[in-house]
Amino acid sequence: MFLHQVAHYLPEQVVDNEHFTKLNGLSDEWIVQRTGIQLRRKAASAENSHSMGVEAVKSLLDKIQIDISEIDLIVGATYTAYDTIVTLGHAVQHFIEVADIPVVTISSACSSLLNAVEVVEGYFAMNKASKALVITSEHNTGYYNETDTVSGHLWGDGAAALLFTKERVSDGDMEMRSLVTGGAATSGKATEAVVLRPNERGVIMPFGRDVFINACTYMPKASLTVLEKCGLTVEDVSYVLPHQANLRISMNVMNTLGLPEEKLISNIQYLGNTGCAGCAIGLSEHWSRFQPGDHIVITVFGGGYSYGAMLLRK
Amino acid sequence: MFLHQVAHYLPEQVVDNEHFTKLNGLSDEWIVQRTGIQLRRKAASAENSHSMGVEAVKSLLDKIQIDISEIDLIVGATYTAYDTIVTLGHAVQHFIEVADIPVVTISSACSSLLNAVEVVEGYFAMNKASKALVITSEHNTGYYNETDTVSGHLWGDGAAALLFTKERVSDGDMEMRSLVTGGAATSGKATEAVVLRPNERGVIMPFGRDVFINACTYMPKASLTVLEKCGLTVEDVSYVLPHQANLRISMNVMNTLGLPEEKLISNIQYLGNTGCAGCAIGLSEHWSRFQPGDHIVITVFGGGYSYGAMLLRK
Repeated sequence: MFLHQVAHYLPEQVVDNEHFTKLNGLSDEWIVQRTGIQLRRKAASAENSHSMGVEAVKSLLDKIQIDISEIDLIVGATYTAYDTIVTLGHAVQHFIEVADIPVVTISSACSSLLNAVEVVEGYFAMNKASKALVITSEHNTGYYNETDTVSGHLWGDGAAALLFTKERVSDGDMEMRSLVTGGAATSGKATEAVVLRPNERGVIMPFGRDVFINACTYMPKASLTVLEKCGLTVEDVSYVLPHQANLRISMNVMNTLGLPEEKLISNIQYLGNTGCAGCAIGLSEHWSRFQPGDHIVITVFGGGYSYGAMLLRK
Repeated sequence: MFLHQVAHYLPEQVVDNEHFTKLNGLSDEWIVQRTGIQLRRKAASAENSHSMGVEAVKSLLDKIQIDISEIDLIVGATYTAYDTIVTLGHAVQHFIEVADIPVVTISSACSSLLNAVEVVEGYFAMNKASKALVITSEHNTGYYNETDTVSGHLWGDGAAALLFTKERVSDGDMEMRSLVTGGAATSGKATEAVVLRPNERGVIMPFGRDVFINACTYMPKASLTVLEKCGLTVEDVSYVLPHQANLRISMNVMNTLGLPEEKLISNIQYLGNTGCAGCAIGLSEHWSRFQPGDHIVITVFGGGYSYGAMLLRK
C-alpha cells in the first residue's frame, strides 16, 4: 500500500513557557531541559478534535490527485474525542459526503496513528477498500488541567489527514513497506502511567519516569523489527520520526539506534505533545524534503501501553 | 472465520420503570408502549466499561477450548470509555497477560460490534492474527442524565466478550459467512440525533424520530445484503438479532424483512439499550438454542450514523 498524501492543521493560538511560569512557577529553562518544549498550539473555544480533523482533510483536498468521491474507507484516530458516538470518522464522512463506506474511529492512545494504518492495511487485504482516509486529531487542551505541574505544560492540539491507496497513484507516493503494532499493557505501570478518564480528572501522567523507560525500550525495538522484515539495517534509514512526547525520549531512541541527530524529525519543540497526531503532522511538515529512495521510520509509543513502527520508502 | 464462543456480564442492580415514574413522571405503560423496555441493569459505583469488559472475559475463559495465551489480537468496542488512553482493549490485555499482540479499541457508536469484527477479519486476512478477542462493553449510566425525559430511561449497562478464530476450533463454532458495515453520516440528522460529548452533557438523543426512521431503513437493507452475498434469502434465516435500541424498531425490521416475531431475538425488554454490547449479549444468552444449520443475522445501527449486518451459520 501507498501513502499518497498527508496534510495537517494547527490551531492559531500559541502558548509559550512563560504562560506556565506565571501559572505554575515552572521556568522556561526547567521545561526545555526536561521536555524540549518551547511552544504549543491551543484550540480556540469553538474548535475540537472533530473540527480540527475536518480542517486537516480540507487541506488534504488541495493536494491529492484523486477525486474525494473515490474514498472507500475512513479511519479516525483520537483519544480526545469531542463526541464518542458521532465519532471523528463520522464527522469527516459528513464533510466529504461519501455515503455507505466503512467508517470507524479508534484509540490506542498516542500510538493510534499506526493502529489506524494497520486497520486500513486489513481492509485493503480483504479487498473491502482501496482508498482510505486516516485522520489523527487531538484536542489535549480540551481534557488537560493546565495547573497540573506534572504534565499540564506538555500538551498541544493539532490534526493531520493521510490518504492511503492500495495501488500507486503518483510518483510522489510513499510505499508502506512494513508495519508492526503491539499492546504492552502487561509492562511496568502501563494501566496507570498516562490516563484520560472523562468522568474523572481528564488527561494526567502520574508516572512519567515509567513512560520514559518503556518508550525508550519499545520504540527502538519496533523500529528494528520493521527494518529486519525488509532486510534492512539502521544504516539504510534516512529519517526517524518518533512519537512526539518528549525530546529527551526522541534523542534516546536515536542514540539506542545509533543514528545521528540530523536524521531525527521533531516538532515537539514548537507543538508540544500532540498525541497520535504528532508524527502525522511531522510527515506533513517535511513531505517535500523526502527524496526518492529515502527510508523513513515512524515509531510510536503511547499510554496503555501501546507501540508500533512503520517503514515508508519514498 | 469462526465465532468460537461468547460470554457476557451484567451488573447486579436492576432498575424498573417505576424508578422513572418517581423521577420523571413517565408511566410504565408509556415507556413500554414506546420502547418495549421494562427493566435495565445499572453498574455499581466501582464498576465501569473496562471492569465489565474484563468480567465478560472472565466468564468467557470458562467456556473456551483454547488456551488464552494463544490470543493474538484484542479489539475493544465502546462509546462509553472509562479511560480513552488506557483503553478497554488494554484493560483486557492487562487482565489476560498476553504481551506484544495488537490491541485496539474502536467506536462506531451502537454499531461497533460489527466494526470490531470487521477489524478482526482484516487482521485474519493479513495473517497478522488468527485468534482474536472482541470485547463490547457499555457503561451508559456513567454518561447519561437519568432526569432527561427524552432518553434517560432508555439506557442500560452490560458487556460481552467474543472469541473469533481463523480456523474452526470445535463443532460448536459458528461460521461467519458474510459481514458488511457502513457509515451513514450523510443521512438525515446523523451528526446530531444521538451524541455523547464527554465535555458537555453526556449521552443524549434529541432526534429519536430520525434515528427510528434510519434504523428501520438501514438494518433490513444491510441484512438483505449479507444474505444476497451468500446466495440466500430471508426464508433461510433462523433468527434475527437487531441492535437493541427499541422494541418497536426491532419489530419494524422483522416486518420489513417479512419475518415472524418468533425469529426475533430481543433482550431490550429487560436490559434496555446496552449500546454495542446488546447484540453480543443476546448471542451469549441464546447460544445453546442455535442448532446446526441455523442462520443468524445480526444487524446493527448506531449514532453517527453507522450500520452493519453479519450472517452467522451454526
